[in-house]
Amino acid sequence: MVLQTRNDYLKAVSKMRPNIYKFGELIKDVTTHPATKRVVESHALNYDASHDQILEKLYTTNSSLTGEKIHRWNSLMQSSEDLIANMKLKRQNFRRTGSCTGAVCVGWNAQNVMWAITQEMDKEYRTKFQERLNKWILHAQKEGLTVAGALTDSKGNRSLKPSKQPNLDANLRIVKIRDDGLIIRGAKLMIAGTAASQEIFLLPGAIYKEADKDFALSCVLPRDTEGLTIIEATRPSDQRDLEDNSGFEVPNTGPTQGLLFFEDVFIPNDRVFMCGEYKYTSKLIQYFTANYRACIGACVSGQGDVMIGASVLMARANGLSSKIFMNKLVDMSINNQINYGLGAGACAMGTKHDSGTFFADPLTAHTNKVVVAKLPYETKRLTQEIGGGIVETGCMPSYKDFNGAEYSDMVQKYYKAGPCSPEARYKIARLSEWLTIGGGVPGCMHGGGSPDGARLVVRFNTPFEEYVDYARKIMNIKEDIPEP
Amino acid sequence: MVLQTRNDYLKAVSKMRPNIYKFGELIKDVTTHPATKRVVESHALNYDASHDQILEKLYTTNSSLTGEKIHRWNSLMQSSEDLIANMKLKRQNFRRTGSCTGAVCVGWNAQNVMWAITQEMDKEYRTKFQERLNKWILHAQKEGLTVAGALTDSKGNRSLKPSKQPNLDANLRIVKIRDDGLIIRGAKLMIAGTAASQEIFLLPGAIYKEADKDFALSCVLPRDTEGLTIIEATRPSDQRDLEDNSGFEVPNTGPTQGLLFFEDVFIPNDRVFMCGEYKYTSKLIQYFTANYRACIGACVSGQGDVMIGASVLMARANGLSSKIFMNKLVDMSINNQINYGLGAGACAMGTKHDSGTFFADPLTAHTNKVVVAKLPYETKRLTQEIGGGIVETGCMPSYKDFNGAEYSDMVQKYYKAGPCSPEARYKIARLSEWLTIGGGVPGCMHGGGSPDGARLVVRFNTPFEEYVDYARKIMNIKEDIPEP
Amino acid sequence: MVLQTRNDYLKAVSKMRPNIYKFGELIKDVTTHPATKRVVESHALNYDASHDQILEKLYTTNSSLTGEKIHRWNSLMQSSEDLIANMKLKRQNFRRTGSCTGAVCVGWNAQNVMWAITQEMDKEYRTKFQERLNKWILHAQKEGLTVAGALTDSKGNRSLKPSKQPNLDANLRIVKIRDDGLIIRGAKLMIAGTAASQEIFLLPGAIYKEADKDFALSCVLPRDTEGLTIIEATRPSDQRDLEDNSGFEVPNTGPTQGLLFFEDVFIPNDRVFMCGEYKYTSKLIQYFTANYRACIGACVSGQGDVMIGASVLMARANGLSSKIFMNKLVDMSINNQINYGLGAGACAMGTKHDSGTFFADPLTAHTNKVVVAKLPYETKRLTQEIGGGIVETGCMPSYKDFNGAEYSDMVQKYYKAGPCSPEARYKIARLSEWLTIGGGVPGCMHGGGSPDGARLVVRFNTPFEEYVDYARKIMNIKEDIPEP
Amino acid sequence: MVLQTRNDYLKAVSKMRPNIYKFGELIKDVTTHPATKRVVESHALNYDASHDQILEKLYTTNSSLTGEKIHRWNSLMQSSEDLIANMKLKRQNFRRTGSCTGAVCVGWNAQNVMWAITQEMDKEYRTKFQERLNKWILHAQKEGLTVAGALTDSKGNRSLKPSKQPNLDANLRIVKIRDDGLIIRGAKLMIAGTAASQEIFLLPGAIYKEADKDFALSCVLPRDTEGLTIIEATRPSDQRDLEDNSGFEVPNTGPTQGLLFFEDVFIPNDRVFMCGEYKYTSKLIQYFTANYRACIGACVSGQGDVMIGASVLMARANGLSSKIFMNKLVDMSINNQINYGLGAGACAMGTKHDSGTFFADPLTAHTNKVVVAKLPYETKRLTQEIGGGIVETGCMPSYKDFNGAEYSDMVQKYYKAGPCSPEARYKIARLSEWLTIGGGVPGCMHGGGSPDGARLVVRFNTPFEEYVDYARKIMNIKEDIPEP
Repeated sequence: MVLQTRNDYLKAVSKMRPNIYKFGELIKDVTTHPATKRVVESHALNYDASHDQILEKLYTTNSSLTGEKIHRWNSLMQSSEDLIANMKLKRQNFRRTGSCTGAVCVGWNAQNVMWAITQEMDKEYRTKFQERLNKWILHAQKEGLTVAGALTDSKGNRSLKPSKQPNLDANLRIVKIRDDGLIIRGAKLMIAGTAASQEIFLLPGAIYKEADKDFALSCVLPRDTEGLTIIEATRPSDQRDLEDNSGFEVPNTGPTQGLLFFEDVFIPNDRVFMCGEYKYTSKLIQYFTANYRACIGACVSGQGDVMIGASVLMARANGLSSKIFMNKLVDMSINNQINYGLGAGACAMGTKHDSGTFFADPLTAHTNKVVVAKLPYETKRLTQEIGGGIVETGCMPSYKDFNGAEYSDMVQKYYKAGPCSPEARYKIARLSEWLTIGGGVPGCMHGGGSPDGARLVVRFNTPFEEYVDYARKIMNIKEDIPEP
Repeated sequence: MVLQTRNDYLKAVSKMRPNIYKFGELIKDVTTHPATKRVVESHALNYDASHDQILEKLYTTNSSLTGEKIHRWNSLMQSSEDLIANMKLKRQNFRRTGSCTGAVCVGWNAQNVMWAITQEMDKEYRTKFQERLNKWILHAQKEGLTVAGALTDSKGNRSLKPSKQPNLDANLRIVKIRDDGLIIRGAKLMIAGTAASQEIFLLPGAIYKEADKDFALSCVLPRDTEGLTIIEATRPSDQRDLEDNSGFEVPNTGPTQGLLFFEDVFIPNDRVFMCGEYKYTSKLIQYFTANYRACIGACVSGQGDVMIGASVLMARANGLSSKIFMNKLVDMSINNQINYGLGAGACAMGTKHDSGTFFADPLTAHTNKVVVAKLPYETKRLTQEIGGGIVETGCMPSYKDFNGAEYSDMVQKYYKAGPCSPEARYKIARLSEWLTIGGGVPGCMHGGGSPDGARLVVRFNTPFEEYVDYARKIMNIKEDIPEP
Repeated sequence: MVLQTRNDYLKAVSKMRPNIYKFGELIKDVTTHPATKRVVESHALNYDASHDQILEKLYTTNSSLTGEKIHRWNSLMQSSEDLIANMKLKRQNFRRTGSCTGAVCVGWNAQNVMWAITQEMDKEYRTKFQERLNKWILHAQKEGLTVAGALTDSKGNRSLKPSKQPNLDANLRIVKIRDDGLIIRGAKLMIAGTAASQEIFLLPGAIYKEADKDFALSCVLPRDTEGLTIIEATRPSDQRDLEDNSGFEVPNTGPTQGLLFFEDVFIPNDRVFMCGEYKYTSKLIQYFTANYRACIGACVSGQGDVMIGASVLMARANGLSSKIFMNKLVDMSINNQINYGLGAGACAMGTKHDSGTFFADPLTAHTNKVVVAKLPYETKRLTQEIGGGIVETGCMPSYKDFNGAEYSDMVQKYYKAGPCSPEARYKIARLSEWLTIGGGVPGCMHGGGSPDGARLVVRFNTPFEEYVDYARKIMNIKEDIPEP
Repeated sequence: MVLQTRNDYLKAVSKMRPNIYKFGELIKDVTTHPATKRVVESHALNYDASHDQILEKLYTTNSSLTGEKIHRWNSLMQSSEDLIANMKLKRQNFRRTGSCTGAVCVGWNAQNVMWAITQEMDKEYRTKFQERLNKWILHAQKEGLTVAGALTDSKGNRSLKPSKQPNLDANLRIVKIRDDGLIIRGAKLMIAGTAASQEIFLLPGAIYKEADKDFALSCVLPRDTEGLTIIEATRPSDQRDLEDNSGFEVPNTGPTQGLLFFEDVFIPNDRVFMCGEYKYTSKLIQYFTANYRACIGACVSGQGDVMIGASVLMARANGLSSKIFMNKLVDMSINNQINYGLGAGACAMGTKHDSGTFFADPLTAHTNKVVVAKLPYETKRLTQEIGGGIVETGCMPSYKDFNGAEYSDMVQKYYKAGPCSPEARYKIARLSEWLTIGGGVPGCMHGGGSPDGARLVVRFNTPFEEYVDYARKIMNIKEDIPEP
């Protein structure tokens, strides 16, 4: 088996059926359209890394199924080392792209979670889900696929269960079970990296009871499947992506999020891994969030590393030694390492599932999620503080005013400051802006679920009564003290 | 004297000489061009307020010079009550516009500071600066002018004094003193609200010694003066302003910042209030920052109020009771009130200058600046936390996808959630996005100077040795304990 | 009228009836017993200040009733300046004593609150409460009394109303109304400064409905009234106060709190200011907390000032320049000034009551209370960080080991570090310990009520629906969006 | 080999030579004297745990040298699992004792660090240090010793190197090298748990250059060695330990710290593991701090667990449901888990030394140290907030007033609140006080070195220039941008 390259990947996604829209327009080729080419480039860089002498160790591994060398993002993670390697890969991705490479993240986690869940379901229901999944994973490993993952439904009214929604499609559901497969309908929203993906792994978006069994659904499908329409989400800063500024105002990489609309899409049986087994949605969510929220610290620390780099450069470009800001730079590094190290701790204290899959410790993982929803905001604040006014609100002239207008000489004259060209200073300020208030801002708050949800898990994983007993023993209190 | 109205104001700015550019284009009429009409509208609302039965008390006052009723933003502030009224007006402005109304802020402060400084200079140098200023203030009050203010120079290399810069124009300077006035050259950058202003009040951007006396310069000039070119700064989100979305994605109000380039501009003598008196730049900066940083808490608390409102609506639009988030909403309110109340405390503990001008307490004002550079970021974070994923990264389809595309029905079907239309939900999410990551984000970090600068002032206003003596007395330590 | 001196005060409290106990013992003379002499000395310093050339301006004022010069702590506060003067006095008290001077704090506030409440009650009920109060205030001003104040009842079961408690005395109550006065029974706990007080002003501890009218009770009584027993509360560090270490380990000043037990105490009518008028307990609590929580920032900032002084000294005594810690010292100063300035802001934005009493703005005052329950903890943390291990846990030998033991020479040899004697280093470390973990720690968390109570007031003073309207107007949303 | 029991341990320490003083008195038997019996009991509980069916897994392991079952605190840690087991043991210790069990902590770490360092030194200098250490470890494992560890010297003037101090003994040093061993003199201060230890492992307190080679010294000695005098450090709250209150006000467990004075103490050669090899002090400190600061999070999280338990009980004892405080309780749990999980992450990302010893990742470990110096303070603040006024400043009557005084009935009547006896409420409040402001407060700020020291390590382990390169690559900036 030969490991795929950037070109293999680009060719593959380039020839997919166009089903992605933005600003009312159909995108013909995601590899060249300015709205999607950056997220594709972000993922193409992964293929480069798999062939890079230094990085290949991180970006490839040997398949636990075949023993062959594969891209790591197609692997089954079966030890705390594997989980930590996932984290390392994510941190490295952010360092190289400044952004989320969503299409090697959720899909990867999804296949691992389902590896365990299918085994549990097969045991109880005598189904053959894991066999199907095994087959698909072999295919994905062989093709070196980039696989996005989708959980979040459109949800509708947050206080009603899926089956009670006025709009039954508010959550993705099984409309019909045929002999050869399923028909599904509904929407998955805010799905990272879909424009760069080849396939999309679907998981249920919540824990369901029997009444909602039609929503207990897991499968994987090519991104260009018939009946699936994708609308690219917008950002305030989209325009900069669309303009051809030769990388002057935005990087050549960057994240995207897609809105997926399923209009009676057919999924053949061998791609279906859960079909109504609602009882297992609880464990599924539990396994998924444990690993996802453990590793999410790696993303934000990688982005934080780039913010540190940009801040050092910005100080210099302003004519100041970066050492003046050492206290703040160290604070940024500490923020990064808290999220990263806490995630690694969750991995280290995890447990191995009977299926071989390794799951992170939930209490620590969800604690990390709470922290991930705070510290990166502080790191961004520091980036703006170090960078000065031109970073804070990106308060600079446009690319067109800076280059080529009749008064551009004058503009550039006044943007010269430290030991670099006005252009370099402009670009670094734009990078800092992009990272903190522009297109590069990742979704660390609600990505992978809300911090309040994580707090709930922390609550239910904290053994309050056990702690009460420690306190009573230490003070030798014999009487029972109940809730009043 | 009749108080000007919105129409008077719009007519006045509409017929000014076009000298503002954006994206390489000259803006013909700031009142109608999409890049500037929002900031103009923000200020037009001030004139409405001056004629509103409830708000007029706040937006007008009687001139201390003539006794006549004037717009408050043209007044001299001569008591702590006047300063607190300034704060109240600013908070109210943000509540009504969601944004900075910069052209009634720095210019106002500037005229007050210069009222005191001109008196001090006149006393020492037997000049007649205050008489000139008096005349101009009467004019501004009579015409009800909207006056921006400008301090920040382009600065060049931050480690060199102005007179040592390779580019002498890096700081705005007097190029020539003529009998009838001055010729000035240089740039003032990141100046809020200039596109909506009628005049611009210039102050020196730093404290200067004798070698830099050519930079010790204060004057006021019409925004459309010959030789002055203004480039509007860009934001990642500009495109939304430029599109005609009928207020769907962005409000009809909003802030702007301009870059001012002076190419040998002539300032007649009667508009010059400082001309080389470098010795007074120290007091000038001290007075200016005390009042500016005391009152800046009002801006951010006003914006915070709108974030609270948007968050309550967002919760409801998602189908959730806002009470679920009461803890976070109270945190937001506390953040607002810390900045506001601390500013009011700085005003209350201020002192009256011989000239009648009232100045806020520097220690408290600069403490407030430090806090203003932190709490609003936390309030924004909470806005994103309450609003959910569609607020966090504005992860929604574009206006064009939402309305009028062939698949828009489908899109809207999936954006229905709580007790309001999908459109209303969309608009609130866009408002929250605009406030936290889009065009509505104000410059609370570096506006009015950096927090590190404020910390320096705190340091020099903290009587460390006095505190050492208290500690020694309490422990009855007689021996002297010097720095080692 | 001649203003009382330290000696007048000491003589007066010295000859009061002994009714204070600690460790099972009756304290004969509070001015000399080691358990109480420090709090008495703290208050004696106030009388010194009233006669000090520089401080008298702060510590005295002219009576609004008689025009005569009085100790400020006996005055009626009738303007924001008066309130801010209260704050200044409190900050100065802490600077000079390192501790709470509770007996010139709550009683003062109580008489001011009751000045307004009695007027309101008199108007509705045609009572003569204010006349009685007026008479007592004239007496207090003439005698220059030190008056503690007491609100907190023992409360019993927190989930039951006073009249539903199994122990009816859990809240102080009117047992009998006689022609000449009242009989009261119950307990007031954690009352600051009682051991140093001459009289104690009682207020209801909560808001009551009709069923609880027997608890709606306000009066003032001499501290040594028959039937009142006071137990001094303990602290972990009491022993150091009791030992005679000549001020080596603890200052000669310091706070105390008393537990007041009323066993059918008689209060004559002319000292009763509320007697069952439960309807007014709501306003009473509202007025009281507004002023108390506005001014509480002054206490903690004064203590913070001493922590700064102690930290500077500690750095030097360790052989380090205090400049190394400048960042942390500035943080401490900022913490102090946030609490102080925010309190001043609450005072400045207050309102004048018909009775002449001035009340601070509740939203700002309660915001301050929330902050006061946080920042001083951070300041203490910084004191421990700067001071090093010997401050953190006071990890040093005892006074007896340091002085006079056979090995004391050896001990002192190893405690010599910076440019001062080992003894001075020892004393400063003890001061820092005392301020952060010893007897000098003030009750900033629950003193004046809990921060959660303050958050409730913030909640009810935040006009959420008004803010919702601003948000809707800014986005031009016409439809109503109700709670789901 | 039979694993030692509580009785073996107590007998062993009981018969040691008395050389510990407090308050000027010699302590005859550390197992019974009230100043030391609590710390001894804390360690006796470890021996119980080694024989407890559930806990033995944690408290014992098999020796990597002999394969025999030993107390875990005598083991060599050779994998990340071993390090995490160290953390688990420490958390469990705190849960059971509420306090630091210092004599199974630093000594354990010291022997592991020296295992690696002796191997490195032996390789360079052809010494036999590891052989000696091996022999001693076998002895320690066989006897199941409790071994304290000591680094911190008295230091003297912080700005002078050891060899330049006016008092040469300010840092522990080799006075003489004899054929059979060393003579050492000086002091080690603030050494946790010495009173409960059987032996003490000495390490150099800093990194030394050649001039200071006499201070590069590591050895281990029995606690009662001739010439060693120990003074127990005091706390404000000592008196409560000394009184016989039958566990009413303080637990039967608790931490202590000792001051060790060495007056020409002889150390025989077979107990000497470093003798002037100054070059290795740098690695020694680096190894030591990595492991110590990784695992320190376990201590503070264990103490935090007890604070949670005490807070739940306190709420109930006050008559309130603990659920009211769920938000704060979850915050406390999050604080605990951040420190714990981050420590585990440092262990997981560590590296194995050639000698077999496993060392934690320095960047993560030192990040943890910074966090450990902050979060526990917040947890303590929350404990005081939840507990109410009686916890905050322990504002309650003394044991003597509560029990047995003539008025004790009255006192108890007013301390009844929730569903438990007044006594139980009293004890829980005392526990919360003890944990936050009393004898139970651990030294998380400076224990294991200062947070500023840890920040330095973070700084030097953050690859700033690498991050700069990422930023430049992302924006395609070719030019070099040096520090100005």
